[in-house]
Amino acid sequence: VTSGAETSADADVSFGIDIGGTKVLGIALGPLDEIVAEARVPTPTAPAHPDPVDAAGDTGVEVAYAIADVVAQLDAAVRGVGGSLGTGGSGSSSVGVGAPGMLDREGRLRFAPNLPQAHGVNWRVLIGERLPGRRIIVENDANLAVLAEHRLGAARGYQHVVMVTLGTGIGGGLIVDGRVQVGGHGFAGEIGHMVVDPAGPPCPCGRRGCWERFASGGGLGLMAREAALAGRLPEVVALAGGDPEGVRGEDVTAAAVAGDPDARRVIEQVGWWVGFGLANLACVLDPECFVLGGGLVGAGDLLLDSARRAFDELVEGGPTRPATAIVTAAFGERAGAVGAALAARDGGLG
Amino acid sequence: VTSGAETSADADVSFGIDIGGTKVLGIALGPLDEIVAEARVPTPTAPAHPDPVDAAGDTGVEVAYAIADVVAQLDAAVRGVGGSLGTGGSGSSSVGVGAPGMLDREGRLRFAPNLPQAHGVNWRVLIGERLPGRRIIVENDANLAVLAEHRLGAARGYQHVVMVTLGTGIGGGLIVDGRVQVGGHGFAGEIGHMVVDPAGPPCPCGRRGCWERFASGGGLGLMAREAALAGRLPEVVALAGGDPEGVRGEDVTAAAVAGDPDARRVIEQVGWWVGFGLANLACVLDPECFVLGGGLVGAGDLLLDSARRAFDELVEGGPTRPATAIVTAAFGERAGAVGAALAARDGGLG
Repeated sequence: VTSGAETSADADVSFGIDIGGTKVLGIALGPLDEIVAEARVPTPTAPAHPDPVDAAGDTGVEVAYAIADVVAQLDAAVRGVGGSLGTGGSGSSSVGVGAPGMLDREGRLRFAPNLPQAHGVNWRVLIGERLPGRRIIVENDANLAVLAEHRLGAARGYQHVVMVTLGTGIGGGLIVDGRVQVGGHGFAGEIGHMVVDPAGPPCPCGRRGCWERFASGGGLGLMAREAALAGRLPEVVALAGGDPEGVRGEDVTAAAVAGDPDARRVIEQVGWWVGFGLANLACVLDPECFVLGGGLVGAGDLLLDSARRAFDELVEGGPTRPATAIVTAAFGERAGAVGAALAARDGGLG
Repeated sequence: VTSGAETSADADVSFGIDIGGTKVLGIALGPLDEIVAEARVPTPTAPAHPDPVDAAGDTGVEVAYAIADVVAQLDAAVRGVGGSLGTGGSGSSSVGVGAPGMLDREGRLRFAPNLPQAHGVNWRVLIGERLPGRRIIVENDANLAVLAEHRLGAARGYQHVVMVTLGTGIGGGLIVDGRVQVGGHGFAGEIGHMVVDPAGPPCPCGRRGCWERFASGGGLGLMAREAALAGRLPEVVALAGGDPEGVRGEDVTAAAVAGDPDARRVIEQVGWWVGFGLANLACVLDPECFVLGGGLVGAGDLLLDSARRAFDELVEGGPTRPATAIVTAAFGERAGAVGAALAARDGGLG
């Protein structure tokens, strides 16, 4: 294999990387939209040698190193696929990166309630320094996820789509009239911070009663502990060593899947809040399709059916409006990374 | 003047009509975007001879007759402007019509909490029957208002705009990436029915705690009566003949403008709710500019300043995000009619 063929293989493949709360996940996307390689490393949570003057920069640098590590793994894997050297040298594939929070059009993280230690970092600059000579695209993770689901996944054929990623918090991505839309400053789709109850629990964003306090993985944890403290969920509490405060969302999901009626009620309650927020979003945006992604979707039909029932009950106009599809992400946890690879190939969100 | 000149004058002018809660307002828009004529008639609230089998159709027919009446007045006025006959014959100007509520793409009213007697009517058919030979465009009133404000008014130059009409309820119109967007089924912008407090007061839409129960003219009335019943607003209650239940929003606005501190507090409270909802919309859509229209804007700077303070305090990211303009509609009560005339000229929302 010649180095010419190697460059060609690189050029046909784009890389997409998603900075998640626990892992940095990368995929290599081939010319036929096939995933040809995958790599992941744990998300650095604190710098190895913190600089008290620039902690945000430090965290950003650590994450940028993790991304460069993932890119090196993908380079090696792609060379392997191409039958090439398998070692040494830097590749040329474009790299798309999805990051949580409010990213401005320069790639700077303006605000991220669930990643405060990185406020102010310029991802594009930091990552570009680690990957010289590459085209780097940085976008909000949910905006990339909706691109993937719209072009290749669960929302193909729809022109108006809202992606809702139900993780620790809630992310959102919008397709309006067939295109990803990021708003006037890049911050559209921060749907988890719609306040749905001004007297609700405090949110890391500084307000109270944001939708993500009720309808996310974090919301599930809150409601589960509330139920446990009220004496419900005895079996889940027993699993948590008897401490109601120690109950985690995952335990409730597992118990619900196993049939525990108390746990099922908590999941249904969270599902109701999911549907409640979707009904609010339908008032504003009137999508043809909602795509639900993120870890909470693992709770399955119990959650989805509850969300659909609440949506039908709550959406303005109810039965007088055409049905709105509520589906789960086809790419699961890879949606953001696949969208990042598509954006890298296109040179942006298009 | 020949009939040829007459046809030419007609063709250069388009008509825009806004079906409001109390009046049907029409304007004729000239080729330089100038308002060359205006006409208005009261909105028919009940049919003269109700048909118990088709009350909605009856109400719709009465409104269609009122629109035809306005069109005839505008025809006559335009002929007068053109120096023409001034009498007889039907004109040829295209007619745009703005109507409240959820209109589908065929011009049918699917749902309108504040106009339930017209549910199900097909405005395009009913109005077309009264105005044979004319091109008729029917769109949601706030979607037309945002078109007018974006192209000619307070939101010129912005690519991402949310229009918020604060009337009896709240209407909304969206500009995304420079174009009016109506969503997958025509219902986008129904922002007044975002639920902002699930335990809030009941709404004519069938739910509780919709934004328009707090931040509209109707919301002002609710809060004013609540304050009056709690013993505040003594001067306003005296004006209402001593009955706290008889207090109207307009009375509170007038008292606030005159300096009554109790009334000012109620207006500020409503302004807080306005800003609260704008902050939620900023999370979802991230507009560069909000345009506020509708009767409640008459409460002036007291309301606006309170809304701006609440927005700044509540919007996600606060000072880390670029400023979002919050301005009042340049066309005031005529925004919907001007937008309707623009849409009539263009053959749609463009």
